[in-house]
Amino acid sequence: MSDTQLPAVLAALDSARGETEASLMEWLRIPSISAQPVHAPDCRDAAAWLQRQLEALGFTVSLKDTPTHPVVIATHPGPGGDAPHVLIYGHYDVQPPEPLALWDSPPFEPVVTEGPRGRRIVARGAVDDKGQVLTWLAALRAWDKVAGGPPVRLTVLVEGEEEVGSPNLDAVLLAEKATLAADVALISDTNMWNPATPALTVSLRGMAYVQIDLRLGTRDLHSGLYGGSAGNALNLLTKVLGDLKDEHGRVNIPGFYDGVIEPGDNQRAEWAALGFDEAEFLGAQGLSVPGGEAGRHALERLWARPTADINGIWGGYTGDGSKTVIACEGHAKLSCRLVPGQEPEKIVEGIRQFVQARIPADATFEMQVFASTPGLSIPTESRYLAAARTALQDEFGKPAVLAGGGGSIPVVESLKRILGLDSLLMGFGLDDDQVHSPNEKFELACLHAGARSHARLMARLAAGD
Amino acid sequence: MSDTQLPAVLAALDSARGETEASLMEWLRIPSISAQPVHAPDCRDAAAWLQRQLEALGFTVSLKDTPTHPVVIATHPGPGGDAPHVLIYGHYDVQPPEPLALWDSPPFEPVVTEGPRGRRIVARGAVDDKGQVLTWLAALRAWDKVAGGPPVRLTVLVEGEEEVGSPNLDAVLLAEKATLAADVALISDTNMWNPATPALTVSLRGMAYVQIDLRLGTRDLHSGLYGGSAGNALNLLTKVLGDLKDEHGRVNIPGFYDGVIEPGDNQRAEWAALGFDEAEFLGAQGLSVPGGEAGRHALERLWARPTADINGIWGGYTGDGSKTVIACEGHAKLSCRLVPGQEPEKIVEGIRQFVQARIPADATFEMQVFASTPGLSIPTESRYLAAARTALQDEFGKPAVLAGGGGSIPVVESLKRILGLDSLLMGFGLDDDQVHSPNEKFELACLHAGARSHARLMARLAAGD
Repeated sequence: MSDTQLPAVLAALDSARGETEASLMEWLRIPSISAQPVHAPDCRDAAAWLQRQLEALGFTVSLKDTPTHPVVIATHPGPGGDAPHVLIYGHYDVQPPEPLALWDSPPFEPVVTEGPRGRRIVARGAVDDKGQVLTWLAALRAWDKVAGGPPVRLTVLVEGEEEVGSPNLDAVLLAEKATLAADVALISDTNMWNPATPALTVSLRGMAYVQIDLRLGTRDLHSGLYGGSAGNALNLLTKVLGDLKDEHGRVNIPGFYDGVIEPGDNQRAEWAALGFDEAEFLGAQGLSVPGGEAGRHALERLWARPTADINGIWGGYTGDGSKTVIACEGHAKLSCRLVPGQEPEKIVEGIRQFVQARIPADATFEMQVFASTPGLSIPTESRYLAAARTALQDEFGKPAVLAGGGGSIPVVESLKRILGLDSLLMGFGLDDDQVHSPNEKFELACLHAGARSHARLMARLAAGD
Repeated sequence: MSDTQLPAVLAALDSARGETEASLMEWLRIPSISAQPVHAPDCRDAAAWLQRQLEALGFTVSLKDTPTHPVVIATHPGPGGDAPHVLIYGHYDVQPPEPLALWDSPPFEPVVTEGPRGRRIVARGAVDDKGQVLTWLAALRAWDKVAGGPPVRLTVLVEGEEEVGSPNLDAVLLAEKATLAADVALISDTNMWNPATPALTVSLRGMAYVQIDLRLGTRDLHSGLYGGSAGNALNLLTKVLGDLKDEHGRVNIPGFYDGVIEPGDNQRAEWAALGFDEAEFLGAQGLSVPGGEAGRHALERLWARPTADINGIWGGYTGDGSKTVIACEGHAKLSCRLVPGQEPEKIVEGIRQFVQARIPADATFEMQVFASTPGLSIPTESRYLAAARTALQDEFGKPAVLAGGGGSIPVVESLKRILGLDSLLMGFGLDDDQVHSPNEKFELACLHAGARSHARLMARLAAGD
């Protein structure tokens, strides 16, 4: 039945474009900056705004308080029967807008301007994530108008702490586990491949992040009196970390590649077909020599291979001029982006072994662990992903790119770990949307194509594709 | 003639012990801290004190002004004829005494206390260098009393900026080149081998000190978005510097060992005979694994082999916690202790080549040079050194150790470069004298044996040994 209603739903969406844009602009006027305590009432206002929108569509809505900003949880039974149950995640909080001087218009006074790709809304949160929330909210409104409600059972989960690392989200997921039970999660917080080509993000890298505090001897020494006899913690630290990768860019941490899945020929062919231009990608950053492992495609290195990057290093005398000191301490921050199959705890232990194996008997080190989260992949054979691919193909007239994400989206891991849910990462941002930067924008073409794609996806999921 | 007068000179020294100690304590009461502008008048007072002592001995004395503290230059014709001409160098300035709380008595109120080796004077400057100046000043007084003047022609050069790096000394040496012409220089600012064994320092290491500022790309990048494709300046910096030495501790800088003189068997035997206990030397600093080159004696590594020490390193995120940044800059301070035969400019150029050869095409670096001074050796076949060896053998009843100095004494290089003079480094400090630290002290046994040694040396030089 939902399939037959879809043309009317899409037509309703198209005629409601002005309403959708006005609705987004209204929400964007609320400066829901989660990092700044003075904006806590605005965060609550932004949550309450969403509550009203969902209640108007027949959802049962509650605001779950946290130590900072509330989580919006809303449920709709859909058509009943055996319709699939979808959990939609989003966030209503935004990044601080600073530096204000670099904005062409005030960040919380959204404007529609004409850009090289047509009209777009400029404001903090335009795309991250209020605009993306509007893509599925507009679809829900159209389904409500045409069919009296969504064709699937829905739970909505929209938090207000995403931009500060979601410190309380896991606790809410645990407490509301029964309410949040669903078949699949749906998140619109990622990008399209390019303005004409949709994308589904099907893998995300995890992270092992440590700080190494190395010590050699009890105090700094004079290099004239001790040089040639005493060991030097900084020579040692660079010796150890300089051995992090071999001449082919392969990481020397023991067991580092255990469990890493080698891509099949199909996967390699898909990456190659995407025409990713690494020279352009690096050139924009003043770089020309690719890092990472030799002999692998750039997209494999960015999406499907683990990394080891030194994020910070310090020790000895770092002021102006010279001091002839042999340092007794050296420090470094080291992080590894992880891919599915790697076990974060084993990587952390591997780093420990890597360092221990390279230091002399009189050196010691301590290791602080700041992050240890696994990489994730979305099962590409799932019926839900198939439904999303079909919806995007129907909307854009070309297949969606199955993209990797080089970074992590922590909620995806939480949804999997606590609720057992795989996520569909179907987003409509573009690489140049200035997320977290001044003049953040969302193309209206992306907003409306996104809304139509969500309307189609609901139909597809209801049809049991 | 001087030989026949020596017993009377030594007797005069012995009976003047109280006067020598009182004289040193008087000088030590003047807080001539060169680093602290508020003490500039004290520095001038300390110079004037020395001027009076030398004028009383028949010297012609002048204070040469510099932008900070004056240099004392004094001359005495000695007995005339073809007596050798000796330039004696010392310094009247002292290190700041801080931290004051760690002193057992006020640093500028000298006291004589009883220690494990007998009585010693405790005060800032007790040994460095006022007490060592008193060793030759007392000898001059005794020679004056017995013979009416020194048995050699003398020029005295005592500066007030040694503890701040002698910024104006070279200019004075150039301006006073004619006045300062001599046959040999004599410096008492070094240590004995142990309380019972004198030493002559016959080699000093030089220094090449650079800062490397490495750049890779135009800005810091997000490791999730770029990790696996973008290069990382800190991974690169540790890769480069981690390759500074091979597995035997040998430095990989091109041409690093060019010109380094291999010690002869005699030299090796001498080092071995000294019974230096490296385990004890390192153990006192919480170390147990010798650094430097494998297969070489500790004293060779400390005195006669060049080193490469990283003195400081920094880059990327160094605050608390984690930041997933790929850094575009990395910095390090690197210094090499140099030995005679190495050319500092070539070492600096070698470091440049070493780095350049190890960075990719899109990386750049700048190098600041903070020091570039050669290692120095005192000709061991010289008649002056022979005279000093005889004087010390006669005083202590055992041969002087011909020691190496691991660090540099910049004035030695200046005296050689500007005046063409080799230096005799005959000092009477001990390793535990707390130089530059609280409770600096000078053993009275060292003070008086030093004075007697200087009296003997003057006789030996006059005798034309």
